[in-house]
Amino acid sequence: MLSKNQLKYIQSLHQKKYRQQHGAFLVEGAKSVQEVLQSDFQTELVVATEAFYKENAPLIDRQRTPVEIASVADLERAGTLESNNAALAVVRTKENRPLLAELAEIALILDEIRDPGNLGTILRIADWYGVPKILCSETTADIYNPKVISASKGSFTRVSWWYGDVVEVLKQVQSDNVAAPPENQIAVYGAFLNGGDVHTLPFRKSGYLVMGNESNGIRAEVAKYVTQRVTIPRYGGAESLNVGIATAVLLDNIRRVTSPN
Amino acid sequence: MLSKNQLKYIQSLHQKKYRQQHGAFLVEGAKSVQEVLQSDFQTELVVATEAFYKENAPLIDRQRTPVEIASVADLERAGTLESNNAALAVVRTKENRPLLAELAEIALILDEIRDPGNLGTILRIADWYGVPKILCSETTADIYNPKVISASKGSFTRVSWWYGDVVEVLKQVQSDNVAAPPENQIAVYGAFLNGGDVHTLPFRKSGYLVMGNESNGIRAEVAKYVTQRVTIPRYGGAESLNVGIATAVLLDNIRRVTSPN
Repeated sequence: MLSKNQLKYIQSLHQKKYRQQHGAFLVEGAKSVQEVLQSDFQTELVVATEAFYKENAPLIDRQRTPVEIASVADLERAGTLESNNAALAVVRTKENRPLLAELAEIALILDEIRDPGNLGTILRIADWYGVPKILCSETTADIYNPKVISASKGSFTRVSWWYGDVVEVLKQVQSDNVAAPPENQIAVYGAFLNGGDVHTLPFRKSGYLVMGNESNGIRAEVAKYVTQRVTIPRYGGAESLNVGIATAVLLDNIRRVTSPN
Repeated sequence: MLSKNQLKYIQSLHQKKYRQQHGAFLVEGAKSVQEVLQSDFQTELVVATEAFYKENAPLIDRQRTPVEIASVADLERAGTLESNNAALAVVRTKENRPLLAELAEIALILDEIRDPGNLGTILRIADWYGVPKILCSETTADIYNPKVISASKGSFTRVSWWYGDVVEVLKQVQSDNVAAPPENQIAVYGAFLNGGDVHTLPFRKSGYLVMGNESNGIRAEVAKYVTQRVTIPRYGGAESLNVGIATAVLLDNIRRVTSPN
């Protein structure tokens, strides 16, 4: 059974401030908890219904993770999901380690993506397209937000991310490119409404794809490092596409050209 | 000012039963109300803040639409949005007229899309890709649901839809195809996890794209009329893509091949 202190601790992790203070975050629902238990994340505590525990005991016990059995009502009180009849896990956050796109790799740069649902969707898309590194501006929503984790449908266990000064990263990419032979240069693609048509552009195998804020797009100080503006051609009347949708279509176009098959 | 009866009437339109009974639905927020006033939909009533009315009077008065001035609090009480500091409109639903894909046209068939957010996103995507006809199974979410209208970001004014027996439509397409010369045959593409790679498939200019339920995909009785199963290649670990995302990527691939440029 959950103690009052455990309940209070878990509820505190709804908020970024306490996630940072405790170095922990919440993973909720059957599928996501199963995925995190099979990942390299370290799980502090699993709160589970008796039924979920019985079905998943080998997975939970393998890591000697402490378990509390709880009712559905307690699970829902502790967590953020409207309905959760399975489990939640308290998981250690990872160290914020710098990430860079390697040669023959595409990485994402997110410049002020504010909506947690969009960010979670982008993690799932990055995972589908085999884009394992996501660099986030400090103003991007917190990936450890329970809404992001939940919308990512387990993909948060298979992609890596870093929060920091993306302008500094891009400055470094630019100066490295000056010194590098053409075949080792790293492209910086950025999503704009007035760029090159992604249906006809050639794409390099090595590069960053920069996606900007839902309302304002990519900031000017980031845009100046973009080496190729890219645009999804429009055939109808809608003014724009949602940033998650645009990320998927752009990665699909990049992957079609750069993948080995 | 809104009367009690007006408030009650508007609130009743949150529910499908009353939308059908009254033949009316809600459009909320500045942008969507402006779009609907410029469309061929017939608006019964606009409820607006004084500021919104002042800015948009020519648009509202042009159609002699009755207007009630209301406070933000009243707007939010009447409508479904958490915040709405502009306006809502009560709009007449359209007749449910059958739609068919013409030659050299791609139309969507939605087979049990249940989530209103997904459906609204799909309207916006269809609008972006110039796919103006959407055929919905009777079990697909109601397009007039305020969440769908809101998620479509005004695109509901530029696409047409029909609710009915999509199996019957597909049966007819199949029998018409038997009698037609090859260049006039209509393809039926369906999104599956085990279909042809959309990066290499040729696409016909005339066809339907069938998208299935969020959990169960396309029903067997619909699947049997699919002439070409299509799949978005996966490069990473995610099990699936959201149905809205998949619709966008598929239409992007179809449009790249079938568009005149």
